[in-house]
Amino acid sequence: MSGSDLDSFVDLAERLADASGPIARSYFRGRFSVDDKADSSPVTQADREIEATMRALIEETFPEHGIFGEEHGQTRMDADYVWVLDPIDGTQGFITGKPLFGTLIALVHQGRPILGVIDAPATGERWVGAKGRGTTFGGKKVEVRACDDLAKAWLYSTSPYLFPDGDDAAFDRLRQQTKKTNFGTDCYAYGMLAGGWTDLVVESDLQPYDFLALAPVVEGAGGIITDWEGRPLGLDSDGRVLAAGDARMHAAAMAMLGEAA
Amino acid sequence: MSGSDLDSFVDLAERLADASGPIARSYFRGRFSVDDKADSSPVTQADREIEATMRALIEETFPEHGIFGEEHGQTRMDADYVWVLDPIDGTQGFITGKPLFGTLIALVHQGRPILGVIDAPATGERWVGAKGRGTTFGGKKVEVRACDDLAKAWLYSTSPYLFPDGDDAAFDRLRQQTKKTNFGTDCYAYGMLAGGWTDLVVESDLQPYDFLALAPVVEGAGGIITDWEGRPLGLDSDGRVLAAGDARMHAAAMAMLGEAA
Repeated sequence: MSGSDLDSFVDLAERLADASGPIARSYFRGRFSVDDKADSSPVTQADREIEATMRALIEETFPEHGIFGEEHGQTRMDADYVWVLDPIDGTQGFITGKPLFGTLIALVHQGRPILGVIDAPATGERWVGAKGRGTTFGGKKVEVRACDDLAKAWLYSTSPYLFPDGDDAAFDRLRQQTKKTNFGTDCYAYGMLAGGWTDLVVESDLQPYDFLALAPVVEGAGGIITDWEGRPLGLDSDGRVLAAGDARMHAAAMAMLGEAA
Repeated sequence: MSGSDLDSFVDLAERLADASGPIARSYFRGRFSVDDKADSSPVTQADREIEATMRALIEETFPEHGIFGEEHGQTRMDADYVWVLDPIDGTQGFITGKPLFGTLIALVHQGRPILGVIDAPATGERWVGAKGRGTTFGGKKVEVRACDDLAKAWLYSTSPYLFPDGDDAAFDRLRQQTKKTNFGTDCYAYGMLAGGWTDLVVESDLQPYDFLALAPVVEGAGGIITDWEGRPLGLDSDGRVLAAGDARMHAAAMAMLGEAA
């Protein structure tokens, strides 16, 4: 991959976010249908329409690339480059009028994310991370902050009830060592971490479209994001995610999560 | 109290929010000192400066009114009218870069709230509720939505870990009867409920400056907000709060909270 390839990928990623934001805003706090999926998670017209719009733009621009979207499935997964899309991450917040939901756009090269966008259309905020180029927030470079002591760390997670058995106990161990734990953020917390405003985000039971876009954003801001065993995130990850602004904090949190109950 | 009295009170409440927003925004996501209070809750320079600014405006406009603020205490609590202020509700979110914190402004008449403002300076949103006049969001009237079945209700609370012993079990009983529970919203959830986007908010262990401003906002939008025994909120409330868009939902939730464990 050349630098100009990456330029054109970033350009498309920004165009995908530019196209999806107005759709999300047109539905947000309005009337729309909500269906429950097989896993009991909700999906809306907005999710489906945004993903369809993004897929059409990708097909038009890079017809040889693969696409893996939360709502409309997988196409050409054996391609070198695969776009991984979550049209609305935080659908529950979207449905209930909470403005922290985001559109997640990742480009995966041979299984590993090289480009990620977290776009928050309700607040008009966007984080863009591309391998080797740093992360921007509203077009300006952002950096994580240092924090080497769990007792001083601010921890975020979407909900304590989203951890499967076993993982919930691990989360609870970690939570009790941190300064404060807050909830309800979905993808937005990883943007807050990349911005240098918070220290730690822990989740599990996520799907590739939930986490692949987060990795370039966090890493480009100088943070570290892996699964709970310290492995880099990829299409084959197990859905456990641990992100920290400070590598020492990441190591301390990982040790706490891995401790025998 | 005459209608023109209420006009002048609403006018001052809006001026308080107009004055506090720029201060909050000037600190948000910047560098500022954070101290831990005796109850281990954090307080920042921004909290103190916003409250001092609001108190000065109240003293200047209605020197005979009382003031009860989270950070700078109580003045003339025996006055007929008392302003109850929380300069930053959701200080933990404010500290960590999450934009859902709010400035809460209540005017209490003989112990009961008659005017409430939820101002969210980071998102530029404001709810204003005044007795007998309905609730506005961004200047436009808003209304709660109907929802008469707990199994269809979207429930919000700031954190499952903020309930004292006993209340946590009651919350857990209720939560398991609802469609979905989400967290991390502080005062913002009551605005979402007044807007007709979500159904139920339950909290406990709150202080008067945390909940008095919420009552006129929720009631003016057609909702119902009481303590867990159905009593109206006032300066003497016990800190348990139950808000619902639909009176039937409120009754069902109250029954669930009150059930013997």
